[in-house]
Amino acid sequence: MTDTFTPDLDLAYAVADSADRLVSVQVFMSGGSAELTGANITRELYDAARAGRAEPLIYSAAKELLDRIKPRDTVVFCTGFFDPPSMIDEMDGPLGCVALARMLCVTLDITPVFLTEVANMERMAGLAASLGLEVLDYELARTTPFKAAVMPLPIDHERAKAEAERLCAECAPAAMIAIEKPAPCPRGRYHTGKGLDVTDTVGKVDHVFAEARSRGILTIGIGDGGNEVGMGAILDDILRVVPTGDVIGTPVETDLLVVAAIANWGAYAIGATIAAALHMPEAIHSLEEERRLTGTAASLGFIDPATGLANGWTDGTPPVCSEAILELLRQMVLLRLGRMNPQNPLQIPKKWAERHDPNTTVALWADHLARKEAAYFAGLSD
Amino acid sequence: MTDTFTPDLDLAYAVADSADRLVSVQVFMSGGSAELTGANITRELYDAARAGRAEPLIYSAAKELLDRIKPRDTVVFCTGFFDPPSMIDEMDGPLGCVALARMLCVTLDITPVFLTEVANMERMAGLAASLGLEVLDYELARTTPFKAAVMPLPIDHERAKAEAERLCAECAPAAMIAIEKPAPCPRGRYHTGKGLDVTDTVGKVDHVFAEARSRGILTIGIGDGGNEVGMGAILDDILRVVPTGDVIGTPVETDLLVVAAIANWGAYAIGATIAAALHMPEAIHSLEEERRLTGTAASLGFIDPATGLANGWTDGTPPVCSEAILELLRQMVLLRLGRMNPQNPLQIPKKWAERHDPNTTVALWADHLARKEAAYFAGLSD
Repeated sequence: MTDTFTPDLDLAYAVADSADRLVSVQVFMSGGSAELTGANITRELYDAARAGRAEPLIYSAAKELLDRIKPRDTVVFCTGFFDPPSMIDEMDGPLGCVALARMLCVTLDITPVFLTEVANMERMAGLAASLGLEVLDYELARTTPFKAAVMPLPIDHERAKAEAERLCAECAPAAMIAIEKPAPCPRGRYHTGKGLDVTDTVGKVDHVFAEARSRGILTIGIGDGGNEVGMGAILDDILRVVPTGDVIGTPVETDLLVVAAIANWGAYAIGATIAAALHMPEAIHSLEEERRLTGTAASLGFIDPATGLANGWTDGTPPVCSEAILELLRQMVLLRLGRMNPQNPLQIPKKWAERHDPNTTVALWADHLARKEAAYFAGLSD
Repeated sequence: MTDTFTPDLDLAYAVADSADRLVSVQVFMSGGSAELTGANITRELYDAARAGRAEPLIYSAAKELLDRIKPRDTVVFCTGFFDPPSMIDEMDGPLGCVALARMLCVTLDITPVFLTEVANMERMAGLAASLGLEVLDYELARTTPFKAAVMPLPIDHERAKAEAERLCAECAPAAMIAIEKPAPCPRGRYHTGKGLDVTDTVGKVDHVFAEARSRGILTIGIGDGGNEVGMGAILDDILRVVPTGDVIGTPVETDLLVVAAIANWGAYAIGATIAAALHMPEAIHSLEEERRLTGTAASLGFIDPATGLANGWTDGTPPVCSEAILELLRQMVLLRLGRMNPQNPLQIPKKWAERHDPNTTVALWADHLARKEAAYFAGLSD
């Protein structure tokens, strides 16, 4: 994808291997399921998704994006979930889309297109602006860095089919990524994690992903509960693990599936891994930007579905949780990258060992410590 | 241990199950081994330690401490590692000891005794003071809350044996916890993670733990590299996984072993789990206290062994990493505890579902969204 730099896949693998474990740590709930059971279902869904694969899930997603995307390519981000009780979009998904879109703008110079329900389009544009992604008409966006478009994902089946075709034909996206996007169960109905039927409030995303797959466009699904686009790869496990699995479980598959405790975290981890591969840690959004993103989302009305409050929380967890995950991901990249620099302070012990015989220093210290210890015990017996 | 409250072991188990996974995430290096390999060895050592056990490692440690400790009991915390190149105590271990000691003071009203090399005793007392644990003579300490003692762990074998006996007889500790404390290899030599022989600078901790075990005192070892007290339980795996394992691997066992990416994190997780069991989230030290602890440690000269610098870093990671782990642990406790309160905002969706038929609301919204969508597409075709 880059002209002058071969992606550092070893570094990306090392980061993704840790990131996989981190983003599948259950801090409290994931979707509706952990809330219902109190059990650590994220790990079970993660293990199921990982079982058939040789590589960390985050690594596969990052590597495929690196392989497929050329500068100025369009990448579609599909998200949005009108959640009861407040019936407005939830935090999980949209924030991951905007953050990952920004990271892919910095690293791979993409044109992001956010695909969401009509009633959510303006809110989504406001959220994208909070990380510096101005939303414009697609034709304007695709010639300028850090511009994006928002397009409608119709609730109506026929409109959704037509839009899917138009989107794929007009934008020829290099990849399509769904983050926490509800997908239909085998009977064609869409549900919340707890099992409420919300079919008539949800964009018919299955047509869009079917169209993308038929055209060979890379598709990635990121989810946490079992009812999201991509989870079809582990439907058997969802039926086994998720209490509401037989109602909400979806057969909708993507080329790659990422399971995370909160779907946004999976998106952050993919972006961080690509930043590692390209030795661009600055591509990961800063803590200040994370706070701006979260604050803007709350201001725009995005809710925590666990309560219905627009308080900056996501899936029942306060902002500090996502901030902590982001900072750990950043350090996974920065620290591994830093040690490649021969002038990094990490090289000090090695240089010291080259200049002195460490055993000589240790022996001097042994003598010093022995005298201190003897003096201490002599003092006690005085 | 408490008069009026039965520990909530279900909650403790749920927290520990997540905490186990969190604290075994490798952010960068653990001991010298990950630095040497660049591989994710923490997970392999964790899996080895967990393999034989039914419960999360953190849960076993927390539960045993809850079972054994009575108010005002003494708990011994053994730590200290003079690390090249700077030959002064490292950050990993002492901070975990002070933080866990404070958490056990708040929850179980213990008297902490910090056991470390003579040359490190004053530094250890200064560090304990930073979290409000004043260090005094043992007799004073054991009658007053939030007081502690520091006692010598001799480098000399004969002195160490005598002190081990005196300590166990005088204090009758309910438990003895070693955090990142170097233990001898089968040939009786003590090493850094990278394999440097530092036998003559290390307190002879094996005598102390042998004495404790012979008296039936609960012993817990927390480590990250393979050369620490407690790692004897997985010596075969250390030989297999750790590049320097055949030099540094120790046979010294404890009743319970906790493996973490950074040993301090294991200590934080045990404290958080006990706080969960007792419904006392305020027992977990605050972010401000964490920063004071780290800043004081740097001021006192405790080093990051990865560089030798006293800059507040631990095992090659900046303070933000431990802060992120601490905040995630705190939320694991707070969020799970919060949902038990019937007045918690988490109950709002349930109450709403009791007062209204959610399907009616969803149907109203479906109509509203359909009209919005129709208007949008009508506008496009105008």
